[in-house]
Amino acid sequence: MAQKSVAGPEIERLIQLLAKLPGLGPRSARRAALHLIKKKDQLLVPLADAMGIAVREIGICSTCGTVDTSDPCTICSDPKRDQSVLVVVEDVADLWALERAGAVNARYHVLGGTLSPLDGIGPEDLNLASLIDRCGSEGFSEVILAINATVEGQTTAHYIMDQLSHLEVNVTRLAHGVPVGGELDYLDEGTLAQALRARTRF
Amino acid sequence: MAQKSVAGPEIERLIQLLAKLPGLGPRSARRAALHLIKKKDQLLVPLADAMGIAVREIGICSTCGTVDTSDPCTICSDPKRDQSVLVVVEDVADLWALERAGAVNARYHVLGGTLSPLDGIGPEDLNLASLIDRCGSEGFSEVILAINATVEGQTTAHYIMDQLSHLEVNVTRLAHGVPVGGELDYLDEGTLAQALRARTRF
Repeated sequence: MAQKSVAGPEIERLIQLLAKLPGLGPRSARRAALHLIKKKDQLLVPLADAMGIAVREIGICSTCGTVDTSDPCTICSDPKRDQSVLVVVEDVADLWALERAGAVNARYHVLGGTLSPLDGIGPEDLNLASLIDRCGSEGFSEVILAINATVEGQTTAHYIMDQLSHLEVNVTRLAHGVPVGGELDYLDEGTLAQALRARTRF
Repeated sequence: MAQKSVAGPEIERLIQLLAKLPGLGPRSARRAALHLIKKKDQLLVPLADAMGIAVREIGICSTCGTVDTSDPCTICSDPKRDQSVLVVVEDVADLWALERAGAVNARYHVLGGTLSPLDGIGPEDLNLASLIDRCGSEGFSEVILAINATVEGQTTAHYIMDQLSHLEVNVTRLAHGVPVGGELDYLDEGTLAQALRARTRF
């Protein structure tokens, strides 16, 4: 159903653009737009500024593929990070998730997706050539494939494994198993089978 | 739990501001920020522009209290609208809902809230004086109180009724009853009792 215009074209355009954000639909975009307009000084002005800064300053790191205001990015240019370990992720969101967890103090490589022949995504559509270049030239001792445990993710992991097989580098992947806090009753058979196979001494 | 910083301060600030929008939490704000950065030309640039325009151009209509880019607003200055009917609403969102429904072609007055002594909101905190002025000077034949059917809304409606009692104007309110498409089993007793009392000939 076409939404009837409820306000001037400027407000309508703001609503339409907000509705394109993930997590917002037409109704919540209207609420968000009205909230922004009502909180002009506290929210609309700062957010418009932050977006303007993002437009001008945020780009893609030419080394690892993440988004940042500097190139090379903050992580790539951080000398305190372990230079011998590279963590390969599908997406910037996965990099952010690992950084929030604080589980690893290494550098990253963002693939920008997974191999998916059905969607026409081949090796040349991902940051794979630069990954292989980095692994050949930067002398990592370990490459951790922190790629999603989906069919496409695992296909991509196997492809990378193949491509790196001629190099002197340990390629590892994340453990599969029961999530911390997870209940067995809610887990799929594949996860349970893998958790059993990879059981450890108590 | 304090969120660990995952990106430069510019991206963090964008995420924090997006998280203040209704409907977005910290996690969905991160997704939204990443989506914006990835779709820079299609979404981030236009949205930053639309917000900049909103900052500069959108204000409050000094007649009715709605938000618009012109003052008096598009609705107040529309000669095709019925000048003899005034619809009183609590909030701009309610005005938008009525406009989308296309149920009335009149002018509006936005109160900006409801009377709520417990929250310290008295008559002087709402656009009530201007409503009474308009009703005295603009010669409406009918004032429709399209105010939410909450306790505060109905208290406010009664207060307005009192304030307008000395004027020659019909004050009406929205019908209560079963929502179109609604099932009796899910309705509260108050609505059912009201729908029965106000039953109409079939």
